[in-house]
Amino acid sequence: MAFSDAIIAIVITLLVLDLRPPETEQGELLSGLLNEWPTYLAYAASYLYLAVIWMNHKAAFTRIKEMDVGLQWANLGILATLALVPWPTAVIAETARTGDPTDEKVAVGLYAIVGALLCLSWLVFFSYLAKHPELTKDEIEDSYFARERPRALIGVVLYLAAGAAGVLVHPLIGSVVFLLVPAYYAFTSHGHDQQPAILHRRTPSDSTNSAR
Amino acid sequence: MAFSDAIIAIVITLLVLDLRPPETEQGELLSGLLNEWPTYLAYAASYLYLAVIWMNHKAAFTRIKEMDVGLQWANLGILATLALVPWPTAVIAETARTGDPTDEKVAVGLYAIVGALLCLSWLVFFSYLAKHPELTKDEIEDSYFARERPRALIGVVLYLAAGAAGVLVHPLIGSVVFLLVPAYYAFTSHGHDQQPAILHRRTPSDSTNSAR
Amino acid sequence: MAFSDAIIAIVITLLVLDLRPPETEQGELLSGLLNEWPTYLAYAASYLYLAVIWMNHKAAFTRIKEMDVGLQWANLGILATLALVPWPTAVIAETARTGDPTDEKVAVGLYAIVGALLCLSWLVFFSYLAKHPELTKDEIEDSYFARERPRALIGVVLYLAAGAAGVLVHPLIGSVVFLLVPAYYAFTSHGHDQQPAILHRRTPSDSTNSAR
Amino acid sequence: MAFSDAIIAIVITLLVLDLRPPETEQGELLSGLLNEWPTYLAYAASYLYLAVIWMNHKAAFTRIKEMDVGLQWANLGILATLALVPWPTAVIAETARTGDPTDEKVAVGLYAIVGALLCLSWLVFFSYLAKHPELTKDEIEDSYFARERPRALIGVVLYLAAGAAGVLVHPLIGSVVFLLVPAYYAFTSHGHDQQPAILHRRTPSDSTNSAR
Repeated sequence: MAFSDAIIAIVITLLVLDLRPPETEQGELLSGLLNEWPTYLAYAASYLYLAVIWMNHKAAFTRIKEMDVGLQWANLGILATLALVPWPTAVIAETARTGDPTDEKVAVGLYAIVGALLCLSWLVFFSYLAKHPELTKDEIEDSYFARERPRALIGVVLYLAAGAAGVLVHPLIGSVVFLLVPAYYAFTSHGHDQQPAILHRRTPSDSTNSAR
Repeated sequence: MAFSDAIIAIVITLLVLDLRPPETEQGELLSGLLNEWPTYLAYAASYLYLAVIWMNHKAAFTRIKEMDVGLQWANLGILATLALVPWPTAVIAETARTGDPTDEKVAVGLYAIVGALLCLSWLVFFSYLAKHPELTKDEIEDSYFARERPRALIGVVLYLAAGAAGVLVHPLIGSVVFLLVPAYYAFTSHGHDQQPAILHRRTPSDSTNSAR
Repeated sequence: MAFSDAIIAIVITLLVLDLRPPETEQGELLSGLLNEWPTYLAYAASYLYLAVIWMNHKAAFTRIKEMDVGLQWANLGILATLALVPWPTAVIAETARTGDPTDEKVAVGLYAIVGALLCLSWLVFFSYLAKHPELTKDEIEDSYFARERPRALIGVVLYLAAGAAGVLVHPLIGSVVFLLVPAYYAFTSHGHDQQPAILHRRTPSDSTNSAR
Repeated sequence: MAFSDAIIAIVITLLVLDLRPPETEQGELLSGLLNEWPTYLAYAASYLYLAVIWMNHKAAFTRIKEMDVGLQWANLGILATLALVPWPTAVIAETARTGDPTDEKVAVGLYAIVGALLCLSWLVFFSYLAKHPELTKDEIEDSYFARERPRALIGVVLYLAAGAAGVLVHPLIGSVVFLLVPAYYAFTSHGHDQQPAILHRRTPSDSTNSAR
């Protein structure tokens, strides 16, 4: 978890690197800052998305007892695709600035592909855990991770559909769905407070961990 | 805490990325370095501010027993706004270099907004803990986090007032207040040494943690 | 391990910094994105390589009981050379874009040198552990790390041979071998699941650690 | 320690960001790479220096039982100055490329100031611990950190003298001393293997920590 935490923390703070003093003529700073609004929106949206992913990641790992090599690769797949998120986000912000309709459709298509890949990596992760109940904690029902799979599958379908609608109809349709998917994952997340209370108080070191 | 620590550590070191060899003619390095003084001042001020935030963050978390989803979102709010700090800092340093009075007022206004948002995120965090005493350690009085709320509220008011004074009267007034607010939080921080001694020696793993 | 984990996590996410919105004329985003394919390939290859290194690193450290100063320097040698990997990767991606045959050979040679240095640092690391059995956990056979040495030595030889073939014959030969070496290390990695089960369940804190 | 480890890990990997594909004409990659040698030397020197600092930092913290607010500020002082190291390193590498003698003297002077500040922050850190023996582990002699102070003081003097000699006589004198000081700290470091063995085996969680 330390490795995963570090990667998500780095990706989430790399977003801020896009916030720079705008290059403007003297006295034009205010309009320069206001013109950067697509970057602010992109920062907010990507931060929220990565925060949601982190909480889902943490919620999954509080139920995992042991990692084998297969699960580590599945986890590395999630980390690889979530590290991509700032890239299509920056591309969308860039096209929002220039406003070319063809480029906007391409950007929405790119974001949809990365979003679908991310959900696909979660599908692989959940499927692996569903097939290896020996890796989950004893208190967790064997069907728990099997029941998580549809949540990931819905994401793959939604991103691909939003990308298709964005490219074929209007980029705005895609963008709206991109903001709704993280919200969906936020509200359906199985938080720490919903896990069996027994997990929290077994040992002194466990109660310390839960407060981290 | 590992995730929060990593984010604060990354943000604090990203500040250094602004320290670059100046682009000067041959033989002009000394004056080039000296002209960069606003960046050095900005580095020092932001480092101190983020260090103060980290110590307050740590002081709060030594009193927290358990995190639920609501507290995690409140914490993510703090992390999102503190990650913004290097951005208005760079904007102020940039305007100090060019010296345009209109731009300086805009930069001070921007810094005030980010500063107020940061204090607001602490207000939300403290309020959430005040309403959920079951999340704090048993040794901590139930009113502890309720009594922290005015500290955060004072920050919101001070930043907005400093921003207004900086925009309407003179940017320097704003900048001076921006340096005083972190000092206020540094001196009113409830450090680790003020927490009940019982927290430090309960278990071997606890005493190890306190030395981290 | 926290320090090593943080460094590998940072290096692996720094790779993403190369993924930027391409600078294209309006309406040319799609072709701009498609022309970036060497960067995507380089991202994928380097991510996989660093992931394989991380897993081998973790597999080694689950067998280490204690670190002395010599082992810390050997570990710092691995970290220093793996942190170099993004650099020759970017050079290869750059030459793939421009397509100059002389430059491609130089890039392949550079990658081969860094790859050989990385394997050499593992050879030093394994040799040190083979000579200091008191640093490994009691359950691990004394010959374990001595038997790991040939794996590192093969890497040194393969990288140097691939570099020579790439420079003297054709760069493509080098590139193919560069992709095969990480695969070799992935398949010969001694994962966590192959270590004696006794390691996993000794103490509550150990079972927590294994799930991290 | 997690926070300090993360900062040192980030600073050490930020060094690699200076290693970029050189901007050369087609077919000129080899000479472009060879011309970058000051950057490679700077990377190696700074990496070694930061590695030595990290080992000294770790050696100090294995002897600390508890942190109070004063010790945290002393530690933040070390972290602030070590985070500066990549900056004068890049300035020296830059002047080595252009070769202007005046600039080289300025760069050596800058490096000397940062180096002296870093040793000064260690002096403050050791002095604070010498005055607060209640913060060190019970097994550590009370005079331990008092005896560390001269090591830091020697560094302050050496850096200032090397800087003066570099500015007044020849930059090369300064550079040679800059490489020797980290070597001095490496050889006088009190490693983990020299601490009382009792520290290593007290509790299951302690023995786990020692292998991290």
